[in-house]
Amino acid sequence: MRAYILSTGDEVLLGDIVDTNSSFLCRKLKNMGIQVQKIIAVGDELDTIASNINDISFKTDICLVTGGLGPTGDDLTALACGKAADQALELNLHALESMKSYFKRKGFQLTRENEKQAMLPVNAKMIINDNGTAPGFSIKLNRCLFFFMPGVPLEMKLMFEHQIKKMIINKFNLSDKILIERLTVFGLGESKAGFLLKEFENSYPEMRLGFRADFPIIEVKIVMSDSHMDKNKALSQIKEAKLWVIGKLENRVISTKGLSMAQEAGRLLTQQKKTLAIAESCTGGLIANMMTDIDGSSDYFIFSGVTYSNDAKINILNVQKKTIIDHGAVHEQTAFEMAQGVRQKAGADFALSTTGIAGPTGGTKARPVGMVCIGIAGDDFAKAKTYKFSFNDRLQNKTMFATMALELLRRHLADLEKNP
Amino acid sequence: MRAYILSTGDEVLLGDIVDTNSSFLCRKLKNMGIQVQKIIAVGDELDTIASNINDISFKTDICLVTGGLGPTGDDLTALACGKAADQALELNLHALESMKSYFKRKGFQLTRENEKQAMLPVNAKMIINDNGTAPGFSIKLNRCLFFFMPGVPLEMKLMFEHQIKKMIINKFNLSDKILIERLTVFGLGESKAGFLLKEFENSYPEMRLGFRADFPIIEVKIVMSDSHMDKNKALSQIKEAKLWVIGKLENRVISTKGLSMAQEAGRLLTQQKKTLAIAESCTGGLIANMMTDIDGSSDYFIFSGVTYSNDAKINILNVQKKTIIDHGAVHEQTAFEMAQGVRQKAGADFALSTTGIAGPTGGTKARPVGMVCIGIAGDDFAKAKTYKFSFNDRLQNKTMFATMALELLRRHLADLEKNP
Repeated sequence: MRAYILSTGDEVLLGDIVDTNSSFLCRKLKNMGIQVQKIIAVGDELDTIASNINDISFKTDICLVTGGLGPTGDDLTALACGKAADQALELNLHALESMKSYFKRKGFQLTRENEKQAMLPVNAKMIINDNGTAPGFSIKLNRCLFFFMPGVPLEMKLMFEHQIKKMIINKFNLSDKILIERLTVFGLGESKAGFLLKEFENSYPEMRLGFRADFPIIEVKIVMSDSHMDKNKALSQIKEAKLWVIGKLENRVISTKGLSMAQEAGRLLTQQKKTLAIAESCTGGLIANMMTDIDGSSDYFIFSGVTYSNDAKINILNVQKKTIIDHGAVHEQTAFEMAQGVRQKAGADFALSTTGIAGPTGGTKARPVGMVCIGIAGDDFAKAKTYKFSFNDRLQNKTMFATMALELLRRHLADLEKNP
Repeated sequence: MRAYILSTGDEVLLGDIVDTNSSFLCRKLKNMGIQVQKIIAVGDELDTIASNINDISFKTDICLVTGGLGPTGDDLTALACGKAADQALELNLHALESMKSYFKRKGFQLTRENEKQAMLPVNAKMIINDNGTAPGFSIKLNRCLFFFMPGVPLEMKLMFEHQIKKMIINKFNLSDKILIERLTVFGLGESKAGFLLKEFENSYPEMRLGFRADFPIIEVKIVMSDSHMDKNKALSQIKEAKLWVIGKLENRVISTKGLSMAQEAGRLLTQQKKTLAIAESCTGGLIANMMTDIDGSSDYFIFSGVTYSNDAKINILNVQKKTIIDHGAVHEQTAFEMAQGVRQKAGADFALSTTGIAGPTGGTKARPVGMVCIGIAGDDFAKAKTYKFSFNDRLQNKTMFATMALELLRRHLADLEKNP
């Protein structure tokens, strides 16, 4: 079965926003075993939208339409649908009721402008919007079943996940037993990962692999959709496939549950009831920011000293002045003392430290842009090591340095988990 | 004049990537005064691409095509163009030469697979790719001038900026005297900004306004394109329009050069030769990370103490234990002492501090999610104030808290600049 996506709204064509709605819907449909054949984006023009709806209605089985359901004059999608279907709009009483209840919940007054949003084509079936004012609707035109959704990403996503997905599964007799396993991987690119896993489809023809890069982490997704086999058998098969993938990617797998590097480090710290302090020079607070993006991180994250100046390294982290004079700030000995200093100062179980050159300026032949010294310390060990990366971009370097530091902590904690 | 964009490649339709290429091209064309009428995304299927090219060739003046120029079997765009144009592909010697020189520069060997990339439709005009292996090309079909570009964003962007833009300007006699002024604004939403500036087009009909949201900052862009007036006159008119916009937005304008909040704060610190230290609780390193994303920030940024635990606030920032016991961590007195403590500890001219509830958990009736106390200190003053925001999202709260703290510093420095 095949699908089209029609995205409406001037803001996409003016380049003011990136059309993330379409990419979300493509991903969701793919996981349901439905291939999107074409995405079309047009502006807020009645005739253009109507002629595209008409055109699409002869070409595909399903079309998901986003945008243009709001209360203002440039919200024309329902009208365009009516025009394409040669149907008048009428006040849909179900839609009006659902809007009234939404407004009541929010304590707002329903205005005349809002009532316009309940005007739908005669044969349309209203879809409740629990998260905004604009109801959605579905309608069959020629061979195609259309679903009209709001353009606001959150409203669209919730309407799709909670309602439209089920309607599609029921209408087209799809299996809803979609199984997905996610692994996160660090230390190789998407194409290398694809190469290592190239035999997957031969070995597991009933499953598909997906890759998503979130620099420098890759998420590998194993999807088993539309399977008519017994649920337990399907579960045991996808588990087997997951082990096969882990076998190929080996220790580059950082989480077998799809967690980010910071989430996995946080999970291991929580589980082992340990705390963390960080001393950051070149990462400039990024590691702390990654850790504290996680709700509940105050359970294990105590302190990060973002010591950008040498004086701060000396005065706050107790790095020896002599170390900086003899070796400079970017040196393993400095990273070593930073990690030990911050661990002691904060009274943490573990400490990480970074000092390096994020660039684009500040590099030398001996200490080029992309070089970083990372320290790690615990109650019975402390060490520091130098890494060299080849990015020219400051933000990429910061991200890679921060991820590498957390990887050292993750490896250490994962080893402790295996050999307590 | 109107344009279409055709984006080719399975990865967009599978939802593996978001189509940022199209949004980039829409923005660039808009700045040249060209309105994009339709964006179409299709997969790597020869017949689908060919029929779309054929269809588009009757409907618009310009079409920008991205993707499918690579060396592998699923790179079919040149072939599809030949099919639509009813032209055979031939080895384009200019294209082959430019590839040879690219490979030579990179020290690689040109393979047979790469040679395929120099096979272009007979009437195509090759466009050099300085940043990758795939040459682009332009070709006129029916009423439409097509430009074919690689799908790799960096290669596409550089090819457009350095070559195709000029080709379009020359071909269609556009003015290349595009003037753009950018302002960044904090403290109001896009729709409110649009409302305040709604008279702009009446007052300045030869210019356009654009808005771009980078939460919680809005960029307002004044664009004067395709102007045939004298350069000096145009310059003085856009300056006048800029003053008009500033008059409407008043002190919500944070930079009249389009700088981000952190860049503007950094610019003022640099100019006034002052240094900054930060004490971050609820922002968890985000302020430090925003500051250190700027190359050269080591000139003014000394230290941030990310004190997530109460002990760290007491031991490292010298917050009074009694303050925390009497008032709790989220309190103006705590923020006040954090700012003073970190300023003294780091020996900085100015200090900022944040302590609050980013959520989604941890809120109470008295101290709800979204509440933050922000402190600021200099050599002759220190104060702290409470702000309440209504986001339910942890990352939005962190971003808003961090931006608000930098805004307090920016206002203080801007006042000093005016009244030294």
